[in-house]
Amino acid sequence: MTSQSSPHTPLDLDHGRVEMTHGAGGRAMDQLIDGIFRRHLDNPLLAQGNDQARFAVPPGRLAMSTDGHVVSPLFFPGGDIGALAVHGTVNDLAMGGARPLHLSAGFIIEEGFALAALDRIVASMARAAREAGVTVVTGDTKVVERGKGDGVFITTTGLGVVPEGVELSGERARPGDAIVLSGGIGEHGVAILAQREHLGFATGVRSDSAALHGLVAAMLAAVPGLRCLRDPTRGGLAACLNELARQSGVGMQIREAAIPVHPEVAAACELLGLDPLHIANEGKLVAICPPERVDDLLAAMRAHPLGVAASHIGEVVEDELRLVQMETGFGGSRVVDWLTGEQLPRIC
Amino acid sequence: MTSQSSPHTPLDLDHGRVEMTHGAGGRAMDQLIDGIFRRHLDNPLLAQGNDQARFAVPPGRLAMSTDGHVVSPLFFPGGDIGALAVHGTVNDLAMGGARPLHLSAGFIIEEGFALAALDRIVASMARAAREAGVTVVTGDTKVVERGKGDGVFITTTGLGVVPEGVELSGERARPGDAIVLSGGIGEHGVAILAQREHLGFATGVRSDSAALHGLVAAMLAAVPGLRCLRDPTRGGLAACLNELARQSGVGMQIREAAIPVHPEVAAACELLGLDPLHIANEGKLVAICPPERVDDLLAAMRAHPLGVAASHIGEVVEDELRLVQMETGFGGSRVVDWLTGEQLPRIC
Repeated sequence: MTSQSSPHTPLDLDHGRVEMTHGAGGRAMDQLIDGIFRRHLDNPLLAQGNDQARFAVPPGRLAMSTDGHVVSPLFFPGGDIGALAVHGTVNDLAMGGARPLHLSAGFIIEEGFALAALDRIVASMARAAREAGVTVVTGDTKVVERGKGDGVFITTTGLGVVPEGVELSGERARPGDAIVLSGGIGEHGVAILAQREHLGFATGVRSDSAALHGLVAAMLAAVPGLRCLRDPTRGGLAACLNELARQSGVGMQIREAAIPVHPEVAAACELLGLDPLHIANEGKLVAICPPERVDDLLAAMRAHPLGVAASHIGEVVEDELRLVQMETGFGGSRVVDWLTGEQLPRIC
Repeated sequence: MTSQSSPHTPLDLDHGRVEMTHGAGGRAMDQLIDGIFRRHLDNPLLAQGNDQARFAVPPGRLAMSTDGHVVSPLFFPGGDIGALAVHGTVNDLAMGGARPLHLSAGFIIEEGFALAALDRIVASMARAAREAGVTVVTGDTKVVERGKGDGVFITTTGLGVVPEGVELSGERARPGDAIVLSGGIGEHGVAILAQREHLGFATGVRSDSAALHGLVAAMLAAVPGLRCLRDPTRGGLAACLNELARQSGVGMQIREAAIPVHPEVAAACELLGLDPLHIANEGKLVAICPPERVDDLLAAMRAHPLGVAASHIGEVVEDELRLVQMETGFGGSRVVDWLTGEQLPRIC
């Protein structure tokens, strides 16, 4: 056994890079955690410095959700992987009606990744968490060799509390219910694609990445009897509606003309042969509510900054085949199926 | 917009491989989740099929912890990444005195990874969770292109409940306290290394990967006034003791002769110039307790299968420099520092 010791070299946030030693559990890892993670994410629970955070929670059922983030590129118009990792998990909690409380964050970093980029990502994550009113209470950092990762992957897990009386779940849609969408679709996916493929014509499209729990709270206050909420992320609106149809054992009939699509999103999709219904969103939701409450719901949504373009896009119907069907702009009808191939990989 | 549909091709668990479509949010992802994740991890909360799990928890403070797992190789003597991902997070909860309840699991899978290997990993994870009495209540799957990952990475987050009266924390060590180690060190790290480097002479060493919450419960029952618990994972016993010394603002004096080291671990370390004090463990813990209770603590530990080799390895001392010092086998003394370089990357 030999004693190891060396001078304490501080992090060089301007020119430094992540090295394997930053994941080895020794002094370098400690410096990385202090110099980037603790500095940005500082809060009393994280500062406990134990391998777990401990805290009391308000009464109520809890909700727990997890999401790995592997988006490429890491920075894109309207956001970055840090903010996305907060929004994605906050939204998964919000879709269950939960008020988000705490997040954990696990980083898997590729050797050679610039410390300046990591710093920027963690700063963005901290800002998104503050804005969403959640704290990152515990975390983990691993480093993998060059060529065994891709910059940085972030897995966030969220914990929230579900208020008494809130009963949102994917199997609660009933024939006759109204289907409401909170705004335009396809913006996140097209923003990523435009950045990745240098599509000059779609430069006006920004990711819609946003935390939706405030919108959800406003919706639940207006219409406590909401049946289901779901955010159309990977697989887009098509996958989201098909999932709900399958869980509830119903069909859905939607109207293409009622689905908002930003003109540049529509143009990019037409050029590339993509279907906006299959493209990921990171700041939109689908709500299903009793038909007599749809006007109240729309009014509450449109009064919130993230729901100004809310639209009543269709109805739940009886259908043993559980199909999602769409009345097209030309008066025809088509089945809206799950995405079967690969459309936009690494979108979130 | 064009409708996409294709025949429903089932998973080929014998010869199939993970494709980018398995992470795209469409039908293939749904098949992967049904065919592997839901099949092995089945429980009522996971079966809810929403993007978040909701549940009631027993009264008490909660504990939350997260760990990314990037171990290479994925299968090793004594375990695999699936079981390790359960044990690592269960142990981080247990070190706070928490009774583990639920886990989330986020998978980041490299394109081309064999479905048979994924199936084996998830089966092992399910078995470890059952044995530890925890349920995997929610999860996520992402797929990255070939060469942008390394087989599979798993980030698990755990939620547990801390019983009334339990107050374990890294800053509670006091001069005079006894330092106890639950068993031999270095076995996990050397097992991985032997597998990775084909070290024939260390083939008897198996990872100590195990869930420690049962041992912790027995220890707390015997000695409710335990001060701190910590598991010496990355960075080994050296990092673990230095962390506790820093958090508590104390020094530590340990005895080399009292630290159990398996002969094959010692031999491997000597040959490779490694220090067993820096090598990761995945089924050991360090406990700090008031000196008058150390015999009761040792008796309780030795009565548990995971603590049979428990040893009183030293004492907490006053030291403004917060050094960990070790009386060596030859009667000398040396400072036990943090690992400063890279020793064994991708060990957990």
